[in-house]
Amino acid sequence: MELANVSDRIGALRREMRGRGIDMYIVPTSDFHESEYVGDYFKARSYLTGFSGSAGTAVITQAEAGLWTDGRYFIQAQGELSGSPVTLYRMGEEGVPTVKEYVEENLCEGGCLGFDGRVVNASDGEAYEKIVKDKQGKLAVLEDLVGAIWEERPAFPKNPVFVLEEKYAGESAQSKLRRVREKMNEEQADIHILTSLYDIAWLFNVRGGDIAHVPVVMSFAVITMEACVWFVHSEVLNDEVCRYCEENGITISEYEAVYGYAESIPAKKRVLLNKRIVNYRICSGLRAELVQAPNPTEWMKAVKNETEIANIRRAHIKDGVAFTKFMYWLKNHIGKETITEISAADYLQERRQEQELFMDVSFDTISAYGANAAMMHYAPTPETDAVLQPEGFLLVDSGGHYLDGSTDITRTLALGALSHEQKHYFTTVCRSNLHLAAAKFLYGCRGTNLDILARGPLWELGLDYKCGTGHGIGYVLNVHEGPNAFRWKQSTEPGGDCALEEGMVTTDEPGVYLEGQYGIRTENELLCRKAQKNDYGQFMEFEIITYAPIDLDAILPEEMTERERGLLNGYHKMVYGKVSPYLNDGEREWLRKYTREI
Amino acid sequence: MELANVSDRIGALRREMRGRGIDMYIVPTSDFHESEYVGDYFKARSYLTGFSGSAGTAVITQAEAGLWTDGRYFIQAQGELSGSPVTLYRMGEEGVPTVKEYVEENLCEGGCLGFDGRVVNASDGEAYEKIVKDKQGKLAVLEDLVGAIWEERPAFPKNPVFVLEEKYAGESAQSKLRRVREKMNEEQADIHILTSLYDIAWLFNVRGGDIAHVPVVMSFAVITMEACVWFVHSEVLNDEVCRYCEENGITISEYEAVYGYAESIPAKKRVLLNKRIVNYRICSGLRAELVQAPNPTEWMKAVKNETEIANIRRAHIKDGVAFTKFMYWLKNHIGKETITEISAADYLQERRQEQELFMDVSFDTISAYGANAAMMHYAPTPETDAVLQPEGFLLVDSGGHYLDGSTDITRTLALGALSHEQKHYFTTVCRSNLHLAAAKFLYGCRGTNLDILARGPLWELGLDYKCGTGHGIGYVLNVHEGPNAFRWKQSTEPGGDCALEEGMVTTDEPGVYLEGQYGIRTENELLCRKAQKNDYGQFMEFEIITYAPIDLDAILPEEMTERERGLLNGYHKMVYGKVSPYLNDGEREWLRKYTREI
Repeated sequence: MELANVSDRIGALRREMRGRGIDMYIVPTSDFHESEYVGDYFKARSYLTGFSGSAGTAVITQAEAGLWTDGRYFIQAQGELSGSPVTLYRMGEEGVPTVKEYVEENLCEGGCLGFDGRVVNASDGEAYEKIVKDKQGKLAVLEDLVGAIWEERPAFPKNPVFVLEEKYAGESAQSKLRRVREKMNEEQADIHILTSLYDIAWLFNVRGGDIAHVPVVMSFAVITMEACVWFVHSEVLNDEVCRYCEENGITISEYEAVYGYAESIPAKKRVLLNKRIVNYRICSGLRAELVQAPNPTEWMKAVKNETEIANIRRAHIKDGVAFTKFMYWLKNHIGKETITEISAADYLQERRQEQELFMDVSFDTISAYGANAAMMHYAPTPETDAVLQPEGFLLVDSGGHYLDGSTDITRTLALGALSHEQKHYFTTVCRSNLHLAAAKFLYGCRGTNLDILARGPLWELGLDYKCGTGHGIGYVLNVHEGPNAFRWKQSTEPGGDCALEEGMVTTDEPGVYLEGQYGIRTENELLCRKAQKNDYGQFMEFEIITYAPIDLDAILPEEMTERERGLLNGYHKMVYGKVSPYLNDGEREWLRKYTREI
Repeated sequence: MELANVSDRIGALRREMRGRGIDMYIVPTSDFHESEYVGDYFKARSYLTGFSGSAGTAVITQAEAGLWTDGRYFIQAQGELSGSPVTLYRMGEEGVPTVKEYVEENLCEGGCLGFDGRVVNASDGEAYEKIVKDKQGKLAVLEDLVGAIWEERPAFPKNPVFVLEEKYAGESAQSKLRRVREKMNEEQADIHILTSLYDIAWLFNVRGGDIAHVPVVMSFAVITMEACVWFVHSEVLNDEVCRYCEENGITISEYEAVYGYAESIPAKKRVLLNKRIVNYRICSGLRAELVQAPNPTEWMKAVKNETEIANIRRAHIKDGVAFTKFMYWLKNHIGKETITEISAADYLQERRQEQELFMDVSFDTISAYGANAAMMHYAPTPETDAVLQPEGFLLVDSGGHYLDGSTDITRTLALGALSHEQKHYFTTVCRSNLHLAAAKFLYGCRGTNLDILARGPLWELGLDYKCGTGHGIGYVLNVHEGPNAFRWKQSTEPGGDCALEEGMVTTDEPGVYLEGQYGIRTENELLCRKAQKNDYGQFMEFEIITYAPIDLDAILPEEMTERERGLLNGYHKMVYGKVSPYLNDGEREWLRKYTREI
């Protein structure tokens, strides 16, 4: 029988804990692969605590139930947890312990700490292991206790797999495997365990649908110099995929068999893996020597090949056409009929669906009107769905997966009258965006070197956006992809701040967010390319590959320098050139006006 | 009898090596303290090879004598080594081995590698130790073989010491020692060995004169929780300094006694030291456990206190007055009398000497006319001393030590007609300089985040300067000081890229260097200060504390944006306000013109 509320669920979990002698149980937000987004099957923390945000960790003892989440979710968590027995721990606030500090302080001497070893990465798992050891306690990591009490749990995701043809992927799986093995050789590794779903899909040129809007396949991969084993539920593979695997030297094994495989690796082997991604259960079963390093595929898949680049440019034209049609419609219908955040997003999605090779939106559309847009991660629900008025800003952050590439674009659209301040900030965000896109720099620069080009104009006004300026973007995979990024804080991950390479695509999305008022973001994707080479070195530059008007209704030309106006005019000229051939006459005339020189 | 030439000296060294069974001998450019500049006593590499540049390493075997130096010195080294038996190894060029690679490749199995363990830092020494161990060879590090053949070696520097009063230093030695001990406590260290001459002088508030233009005292320091020992030649201390030391709990010991002291530290103690600075001889004698970390004093002395800041501002006004008087004289006398690079530098030095509390120039003045200025580290000698013509650029990079602070300023002055290109690049360098100085940024930013503000305008033209944009600057110490700096490449040193703190002073010196043609550099010092604090965090900004005109004769106002012109005009208005009260009428009128609004 389904447990009706959070109190009952926590009570049931506590009974399970007592039955097993577990004093403290941790429920993070993760699948078995450290995926950024997780499927419903994996929403154990949400089930247990009632907090539905995408990030958070629950820790349960007989005395207390705590929920840790970050600043994006304080307000939401406070609301969702009110009346429940769960205490909110606001991560990052002064005096608030981290989960690890809490465990250290509250686990009794000789106590037993439990978690499902498959949903905690090896790096974190080892940190818990150390805490427990110092307390002469023990770990219980083999059981999923939430699973034990969760009667109506959604099914484990097992969606059909398809092969992404080479005309889309640009490089065969065999060639990619060869490159991975070269890297293994360099690292003197015999075996590579790869559990990142994005990396596996990229490496094998396969796609699925096991996470909403992230077309991956729940699976693990193990690569040796001679063989390659794909641990995957066999029912998701049709004959064609099986034949493809056979032809490419990829052996199929059952999904759960990876744990036994890991245990069977002889102690004298050297295993390359990333402990921040591989789950604790796999890693703790290994006797072999570990080579701790980023997955070679992470960097490889970030550097798009020429086929992918040509495809991506095409996908972006289609996406730009869809967005332009949406913008034209919105500008012409606002105030004349009822349009809401959701109906606007639906109209945009329909325009994308009309495009060739469209597969899916690449993430839940952020369609945020007025004050809703000040919440960076807002996505409208039927309860919050605001009716758009012919004034102020609508912020639309959206994208599509096409077989020939994925997109991620944000435009903030003036629906009518704007205040001078709104235009001032919109213009500043536009200048920020253009400055970064126009960067010319020597090879070797990292995102941390360039971030201030976008952030500087806002910092000058005493403003900031509390996130990076941009992220790498996957090719028909997760729209958020490393290791390339624009941010100002140094990464704590090894290899986290990589040099920007020719072929990397990174978003450029500065913004202004004023709580309770409005939000502005302008996001283009930037393709990194080589510029001239001379005695000083190899210069690099960006090509903007997002094609949609930046709303001139919100621009104050007098606040832009001649150079900045030139950059915007040049961009708009390109947009008109790329998009106008696919529009009807009315749309084309409108686009001409919205890409005019200022 | 003095050995007349390089061949004889190398021959003599080889005899010494044979007599001791040493197969390979390394002679770096260093004193016993890893000082940036070394006194004549320590110029063993220069004596041995004839190459007089400030950076380089010689490696001698019976078969070969090699000299490694970097790009700044290729031309000079080629000239100075020509006709000698020394082979030039151009560091950083493709296919050229590093010194360590050379040693690895050329030291025979079981061979003996020699160097004076006092002039190699522990980190490098241990790398050599490893190479030798892998070859089953041995090290000989107890003798200075160049010393053994160098008859007329200059005397070891032993100049008188004085106490820098608290009205100049702003914090007592006791207070500084307390802070160092707090840091030792944090690191759980019992003992701290400090061998950096700058750090010792700062910590004890003493100054000397043991390196030209760097008023330090050859000495070592050891700090424990209860005691503090200063290893220093007793003859450099007068009664007053001895009394001062006694009052401040600083025990005096002989300079050479540090080696015995290090060996006597019990194995169970924990010793904090920086292996990249402490010499190999000290470090290899230690049995105690090491805590490898930057010297706490490095960061502490970089953050200037309020007394130092008030003093530095005063010193800069005096320095600006001296420079303005020099610039006035030069602009009015060029073409009318014979002025050379050296006589110009002398005139400038005289103007500094007239200022109150002047001690010394803070480094050898770079006074470089025309093509000479394209060599970043050129300093005129009687042989190269160019006569200034009433055309082109004179680049003057100079500074003074005053009891109330040290300065480092570069101005490039138009002596007459300039080409459009010269003005274009001068204007670009000025814009670069102003952009960085005007930065507003969130606390936590490092120099690597901001560097592009200065470098960007030059990168845009496909130009670069092959050095950092700026360095920290010592307070009556070395003008080059860490850990603060502006550069785009990440530091490989732990803690190398520090956050910019309130009170740090860093130079801002972008430039254009066209080989065989001319060089342009504009250098101001920037004091980092807190700006507003709000929900986004603590904002930081810079105060320019260098006060001298940027030559408007070389500026193209039409190439500057309104904001840039505003920045330059604002700077010049400040310069006029600070400097004009100390000028005569003619100079004042001239300064009004050279600080006019554009």
